[in-house]
Amino acid sequence: MAKNFKNNAITSRDEDFAQWYTDICKKAELMDYSSVKGFIIYLPYSYAMWENIQHYMDKKFKETGHENVYMPMLIPESLLEKEKDHVEGFAPECAVVTKGGMNELEDPLVIRPTSETLFCELYAKIVNSYRDLPKKYNQWCSVVRWEKTTRPFLRGSEFLWQEGHTIHADEKEAKEETLLMRDIYNQTAKDLLAIPMLTGRKTDKEKFAGAEETYTVEALMHDGKALQSGTSHYFGQGFAEAFNMQFLDKDNKQKYVYQTSWGVSTRLLGAIIMVHGDDNGLVLPPRVAPIQAVIVLIQSQKEGVLEKAYALKKQLEEAGIRVKVDDSDKTPGYKFADAEMRGIPIRIELGPRDIEQGHCIIAKRNDGTKRTVSIDETLGDYVSSLIDTIHEEMYRKAKDFLDSHITMVTSFDEIGKVLDEKGGYVKTYWSGELASELKIKEAFQATSRCIAEDEYPPEGAIDPADNKPAKYIIYYARAY
Amino acid sequence: MAKNFKNNAITSRDEDFAQWYTDICKKAELMDYSSVKGFIIYLPYSYAMWENIQHYMDKKFKETGHENVYMPMLIPESLLEKEKDHVEGFAPECAVVTKGGMNELEDPLVIRPTSETLFCELYAKIVNSYRDLPKKYNQWCSVVRWEKTTRPFLRGSEFLWQEGHTIHADEKEAKEETLLMRDIYNQTAKDLLAIPMLTGRKTDKEKFAGAEETYTVEALMHDGKALQSGTSHYFGQGFAEAFNMQFLDKDNKQKYVYQTSWGVSTRLLGAIIMVHGDDNGLVLPPRVAPIQAVIVLIQSQKEGVLEKAYALKKQLEEAGIRVKVDDSDKTPGYKFADAEMRGIPIRIELGPRDIEQGHCIIAKRNDGTKRTVSIDETLGDYVSSLIDTIHEEMYRKAKDFLDSHITMVTSFDEIGKVLDEKGGYVKTYWSGELASELKIKEAFQATSRCIAEDEYPPEGAIDPADNKPAKYIIYYARAY
Repeated sequence: MAKNFKNNAITSRDEDFAQWYTDICKKAELMDYSSVKGFIIYLPYSYAMWENIQHYMDKKFKETGHENVYMPMLIPESLLEKEKDHVEGFAPECAVVTKGGMNELEDPLVIRPTSETLFCELYAKIVNSYRDLPKKYNQWCSVVRWEKTTRPFLRGSEFLWQEGHTIHADEKEAKEETLLMRDIYNQTAKDLLAIPMLTGRKTDKEKFAGAEETYTVEALMHDGKALQSGTSHYFGQGFAEAFNMQFLDKDNKQKYVYQTSWGVSTRLLGAIIMVHGDDNGLVLPPRVAPIQAVIVLIQSQKEGVLEKAYALKKQLEEAGIRVKVDDSDKTPGYKFADAEMRGIPIRIELGPRDIEQGHCIIAKRNDGTKRTVSIDETLGDYVSSLIDTIHEEMYRKAKDFLDSHITMVTSFDEIGKVLDEKGGYVKTYWSGELASELKIKEAFQATSRCIAEDEYPPEGAIDPADNKPAKYIIYYARAY
Repeated sequence: MAKNFKNNAITSRDEDFAQWYTDICKKAELMDYSSVKGFIIYLPYSYAMWENIQHYMDKKFKETGHENVYMPMLIPESLLEKEKDHVEGFAPECAVVTKGGMNELEDPLVIRPTSETLFCELYAKIVNSYRDLPKKYNQWCSVVRWEKTTRPFLRGSEFLWQEGHTIHADEKEAKEETLLMRDIYNQTAKDLLAIPMLTGRKTDKEKFAGAEETYTVEALMHDGKALQSGTSHYFGQGFAEAFNMQFLDKDNKQKYVYQTSWGVSTRLLGAIIMVHGDDNGLVLPPRVAPIQAVIVLIQSQKEGVLEKAYALKKQLEEAGIRVKVDDSDKTPGYKFADAEMRGIPIRIELGPRDIEQGHCIIAKRNDGTKRTVSIDETLGDYVSSLIDTIHEEMYRKAKDFLDSHITMVTSFDEIGKVLDEKGGYVKTYWSGELASELKIKEAFQATSRCIAEDEYPPEGAIDPADNKPAKYIIYYARAY
């Protein structure tokens, strides 16, 4: 740890956001680079956050009737090619195994970029009757997609994720599943990560390779760029036909299943950094933070200070709080800066004088405020409730930022102006035509993020890009 | 599920053990085959067991100061080649990626067969001073080793495992770590899986590629063959020198670190099947069983039966028990056979007459005994304590089997005779010479499983294979 803090300063967020991001990734010891380009090492601090996300989401998945499985990491090229749109989307990004056990392989194997084809092959084999439906499987794994430009957590040649794959006897149930998972992603972002999401449906241009509909949750970073943070796809019967996933229905007829898939990845870690972080480092939402409170000792060599700190730690742990004591031989100033860089939500300062007076000082990372608090049997409750308060404050701040960065625009030039000057989302009217999307992308380097689901243009509204009658409300942004 | 049970019969264990094993893997819906040879699909029922093993062990790892990380799945061939013994051991089993993103790679990449080299590269980079030590990282992932002959869970081209990699400032601490992990594996097998292990040190011939010492835990299958179930390696400074892992010690001198690694895999699932299973299917140790108790309804269409079953389920769940209600429209006989095939430790039978009389019938999968038990507020405690009882009974039975299949032998011919007629372990004297091991392997197709750690030959004892003075007590067996 020590050597990373020789120079604690990081680049200012508003001066060079990209460099600020990289500085935090390194100085908070979230990741390191490996000798293979685009393949990062998830160090304990970021991996512990991913574990917290996993535990939270896995519980939700299981409560909603999903089961975990593990599928092979290698897919025969011939299998990947079975669904035309799908292979077109993924083939250019594949890592291909051509040798195994010293021999050349006849059918090369692709490291999974996603596992639709494997789940289809399995389901085609094990499902015969309506009694076997639905099947709702999920897996936690890593996938490989060969990327030219990579950034830690945001875009990598390998990343960790979960991928759910479900099949259903009817269309309605499959569509409900697609939306349910979108809702679970949205709720997780809100309740665990304190991140408000813009949600909606992707345009045909932006949807997943092979999907009929893709729903997305999109987070807004501090620099005004959007980050696609989770997607849920409805496939209809496209894969079912390509892979012959049929079942005998109650009416004694063979039918094709309806299918969904959905995933979130370690991109969420990037979202946490870029939504909440500041010029002193990470600011972690307390429910996902590996360490929720750090006890920093002032004059730890004084008799009784260390003992009191560990007694406090025990007390707080019994209240369900994740606590660390910083009993290193560094100065308090160094320890404060270290705790700030790592974004630990609550800092508890404890010195001999505090102990004498029966209190400690509690500082909140998210707004820097400090308060003197009595050390007694209510401290656990106090800190627990502070965790909720901090969570709410962080969510509220991010929500205000999001709300103030959605700008309704109805003229073409204004779209570019808002993106340049203010960033965030441009909300506008859309004809539903690809040409309109392409024109905006070309002119302003912005992509459509999603189509609003519950809001439609007023009578007579016009798409500002192609001047055709508007059918939808759509959101554009520059994005990661 | 239904279609797998049209014919419920499985091959008898004593008639054809290999076929019995495969039958169980399929009929208990533990796994399925994929279209890539040697790569299996872990279906929900086996994956849930693996999750239970993960949760149990991960807690132990964290309690003993280990942290989880995630390393890249791809290793440059050039990096793998840095430690000579290591690459010799693994190169023949590697899957090699030669194409990425449509381009040929200059330095081919190997899918990790194990990750020593990656951890070494990281540690060399992030460790400078004695203050940075120890580093105790672990990861849960899958690895790929190209195998010619594969069997579900026992030997596959891809398997799930955990691999711990630690570095230490001194030899003593590293050796203690090696033994601590061996102990954790041994305890997990005993306390979670009800499997007694034979533990000891591997001979030089059988140790891990690149290790100075390998400790092993070995389980004994019902057919008398051994299964290596977990290993813990002490590397000394071999990798440290190859990878230049140095640190500045307290005495201001640059020194090489001392290193360990250790792993267990989904082989443990194979051990569970082959230690405890019988001719009616799986017999699961209750602490690892995904479903600990199944409530089977008799005449479920009768009023109140279903409601009572779900009330019971809720009551048992509140006592921390994993319960399922089988409310399918199958016959009770079918449901009983199904629960037996899946090895569910406790079956609770519930019909209208039982409810009237305020009791239910509880059957134990491990010994087939049944008992009538009152349905009242003590039922949760009763079932919880029954779980412990079943665990103890299963462990005791397996321990008796192990103990009665360790045969002390002091003549060469007797070794073969015992292996042929009785199976299990032959315990004998060893000179410490490779030639002795090779002679036994050649003559009897048995490998040394481990050297006893706390027991030595008496004065004058002779190795029966090479007639040289004995230095060690050693165990041989035919093995998976």
